[in-house]
Amino acid sequence: MTDAPTGARGSVGHLFQLLRDGRPHTRAELAKATGLARSTIAARVDQLLTLGLIVPVADAASTGGRPPSQFALNPSGRVVVAADLGASHATVAITDLTGSVVAEATDRMPIANGPETVLAWMVDAARRLLAGVGRDETAVAAIGIGLPGPVEFSTGRPVNPPIMPGWDRFDVPGWVREHIDVPVLVDNDVNISALGERSVAWPGADDLLFVKVATGIGAGVVSSGRLQRGAQGIAGDIGHVRVARGSDVPCSCGNTGCLEALASGPALARTLRASGIAAETGDDVVELVKNGSLEAIQAVRQAGRDIGEMLTVAVSLLNPRVIVIGGSMARVGEHLLAGIREVVYTRSMPLATERLAIAQSEAGARAAVLGASMLAVEHALEPENLSTKIAAALSAR
Amino acid sequence: MTDAPTGARGSVGHLFQLLRDGRPHTRAELAKATGLARSTIAARVDQLLTLGLIVPVADAASTGGRPPSQFALNPSGRVVVAADLGASHATVAITDLTGSVVAEATDRMPIANGPETVLAWMVDAARRLLAGVGRDETAVAAIGIGLPGPVEFSTGRPVNPPIMPGWDRFDVPGWVREHIDVPVLVDNDVNISALGERSVAWPGADDLLFVKVATGIGAGVVSSGRLQRGAQGIAGDIGHVRVARGSDVPCSCGNTGCLEALASGPALARTLRASGIAAETGDDVVELVKNGSLEAIQAVRQAGRDIGEMLTVAVSLLNPRVIVIGGSMARVGEHLLAGIREVVYTRSMPLATERLAIAQSEAGARAAVLGASMLAVEHALEPENLSTKIAAALSAR
Repeated sequence: MTDAPTGARGSVGHLFQLLRDGRPHTRAELAKATGLARSTIAARVDQLLTLGLIVPVADAASTGGRPPSQFALNPSGRVVVAADLGASHATVAITDLTGSVVAEATDRMPIANGPETVLAWMVDAARRLLAGVGRDETAVAAIGIGLPGPVEFSTGRPVNPPIMPGWDRFDVPGWVREHIDVPVLVDNDVNISALGERSVAWPGADDLLFVKVATGIGAGVVSSGRLQRGAQGIAGDIGHVRVARGSDVPCSCGNTGCLEALASGPALARTLRASGIAAETGDDVVELVKNGSLEAIQAVRQAGRDIGEMLTVAVSLLNPRVIVIGGSMARVGEHLLAGIREVVYTRSMPLATERLAIAQSEAGARAAVLGASMLAVEHALEPENLSTKIAAALSAR
Repeated sequence: MTDAPTGARGSVGHLFQLLRDGRPHTRAELAKATGLARSTIAARVDQLLTLGLIVPVADAASTGGRPPSQFALNPSGRVVVAADLGASHATVAITDLTGSVVAEATDRMPIANGPETVLAWMVDAARRLLAGVGRDETAVAAIGIGLPGPVEFSTGRPVNPPIMPGWDRFDVPGWVREHIDVPVLVDNDVNISALGERSVAWPGADDLLFVKVATGIGAGVVSSGRLQRGAQGIAGDIGHVRVARGSDVPCSCGNTGCLEALASGPALARTLRASGIAAETGDDVVELVKNGSLEAIQAVRQAGRDIGEMLTVAVSLLNPRVIVIGGSMARVGEHLLAGIREVVYTRSMPLATERLAIAQSEAGARAAVLGASMLAVEHALEPENLSTKIAAALSAR
């Protein structure tokens, strides 16, 4: 788990770390282990019981009318809504508090339809999915949303998103909370994909770089176990880094030689078309590679080298444990990774690559929705956020 | 302050955040503000009093034999030893718990003299400085040391340091503690320079990149207010990133076109010599620039562009608030910064540079020693480290 103050010994956060092991604990144990006052523990436990996040556990030794003395996390006591709202398709999932998906729906839903249309679809889909598993909105602890553009995380508003007409500065949490009034966390889809991939495949990796290669190219940076968003929340926007070989290739941003103009799905299709090969989209390129097209394989491998060039700087700067390659173009498999590895292992200092893994995404197309779940779960279980506000919202229902 | 779990509300760390405001607090206030049990607070306060980190504050209303009820941080109650052990010179300072220098000494001391010679000098210098300000070793809360090479932070051992013969895997903390038995923190000098610079000039910047340009080129990365060391502690080792224009320039690492082979002080001197200008070292280049040599100014500006090329990737990846340029070559002033800014502002996306500052180091040659102090102070004030071990060490004296 990442991306939240995770509670040193003595903090209320530590209380959760203890409870999240799933085993039963007594109030006295919790007080002793955290150093918190008995009164603080008692108040917190009551709040968690009210919210359904923990449940009393039957005490074998206890008979008669005594109140329950042990408590454990109740992973299915509450759920979160996780949404990955992509350029052309959208996915909504209901997960429990461990991030396990209990229901999921994907639909064609272009982000360019604008925030109200897309978010209304999301709210409807969430309600349908909840009904399908016999729950309702009161079971939802938080909502996590991934969007295909830069997001100011503190406010949940997109900031100058290039492919999201109508979304600039739109108050996503405000709109959603008018329909389902729980905390709403919004982040860039690549950022949360790093969280999703980490939870699925690299739970112990505190320094992880997730690179999405699709229509665009972006990265999610996890350092010291935390998602790093940078000063304005746009850390990882690497699509317009200059690549040496591409000095004459124009990019939609107005510059030339950008990584995205050389190594994205559309750029690869363009390269192949220039050689007389029919390829309109990145998906066509993936298909060509799978069918053994030598030209497509060579183009993909070169794209890997271009991405690798940028990654040598990332490896030197961040010394990651693992670089995960995801996004739709990662489906070409080893050819892209081979190009990346070729450059990273040739150009990096030995110590930095000694234990560095460069791996294909295991979460695949579900990295973002699983990351959205992580974002919501972490928020829901963060003690600072189990505030009177939530309690009030619950009691008002 | 950075680089330590800094205590969310409810943690013992928060107790320190409260005390470090310098104002007096009562036990009751501390218990209320932290949510910690009265008994926990009482034990912690006693420990801090014993260690001299806090002092009783006279209570105006209190007369007679009542025990003191208010406490405040005692910045000069204890000191730390901070050392910057460089390639050719070494600096040792004594600072108080706010990082203010109370005594300092610099001497010619090549790191290549080996660990025992250099560290013995450091211990002697620290003792002399302590005596000079009327203190002794019992006043020392911790020692922070910066070294000019990669260090495994968790053990304090250098790892394959290229310019430090005899230091590889040497147990620096173990050796020092045989002479002054307090916690010893060791880190790469560029990493701690980022901490030193931040404390001096950018206390509010949670995302800061410090780039040292001297005989070598390296970076210290602060993200989300924490120094990032990466999976093996070598984050920021950017000297051997490839620069586009230098594909035929050989580097000591065996590759060609490395940033260090093009933009370091020795590289600039070499470039100027090739044009028939007398320059043996980076210092000569600085002198030439200060004397208005057009060739030297052009070479420095080009070095700035080379560094800027690497920094465009860093800006996209980390979205820093500020990039600080330090190291001996930063003394050339605006010419180096102009080259860096030229490339970074031309090649980065507008949002990433909208509020990005690219500034010369204010801490200058003292960045590393001030950072070593920060490292030691943070450790000394971190509650987890005010352990029975220190208490035992103190009581055994």
